[in-house]
Amino acid sequence: MENLGSPMQLTRGADYAVRAMIHMAAKPDGTRFLLPELARLTGAPDDFLSKVLQALRRAGFIQSRRGRSGGFEILPSGREATVKSVVEAIDGPIRLNLCVSPDGICGRKVECAAHSVWARAQAALLKTLNSESIAGLAAKTKQ
Amino acid sequence: MENLGSPMQLTRGADYAVRAMIHMAAKPDGTRFLLPELARLTGAPDDFLSKVLQALRRAGFIQSRRGRSGGFEILPSGREATVKSVVEAIDGPIRLNLCVSPDGICGRKVECAAHSVWARAQAALLKTLNSESIAGLAAKTKQ
Repeated sequence: MENLGSPMQLTRGADYAVRAMIHMAAKPDGTRFLLPELARLTGAPDDFLSKVLQALRRAGFIQSRRGRSGGFEILPSGREATVKSVVEAIDGPIRLNLCVSPDGICGRKVECAAHSVWARAQAALLKTLNSESIAGLAAKTKQ
Repeated sequence: MENLGSPMQLTRGADYAVRAMIHMAAKPDGTRFLLPELARLTGAPDDFLSKVLQALRRAGFIQSRRGRSGGFEILPSGREATVKSVVEAIDGPIRLNLCVSPDGICGRKVECAAHSVWARAQAALLKTLNSESIAGLAAKTKQ
């Protein structure tokens, strides 16, 4: 049913963010990456990836340096970040649907059997995304 | 970042479908519901819910009868349906992002550490949605 809303998906931005962070974390501290290099490594368009990287910078996961030896560099907090926190830096809080919105928009949840399923499904999803750090994933890439 | 795509959400249509099915399954076999009654029970607008119910009918989970004693009626396959299958009747196949698309759009998955996280997160989500049937949820509602 195409007309009943968009199916659930994490955004492409979140996917590119995680990929870029893994590539940066696979290299030693202090390694700097230029935008075209990260675009090639992640498969993201340059201008789109640039916005993603700005969001990661605002979240404190990476920094950017100007000048001849400039570029993007992952910070310790970025290496330690979980996939959940990287996704949320791009997409905002993950919520499976409006039922499990943190602002408690649903006033029926006490009586609604559907609510418990959405809440458990969301918990399972977040647990998985929270169980992996960028550094952990980078280590697997290098093996 | 508002401009990097829509955050993941199950659709409202999927949520209404699950709620409507639970309400129908909480009553004995053969009970018929009129659209306004289901709209009131689920909180869905009539015209939107009507489309949702047509999709559930096409999926074989409910039937609709015309006439004075007509209305929507849940079928045995609807009672036995899992939340996953009801969601998919509305939204199509659940996929967390394009990385884990069943059509294998991503050619990098072997080398990409991000892929394994998305695949595991999707599996955790689907396992939860597959673990509950409409009848099971209806039984909890009645308690």
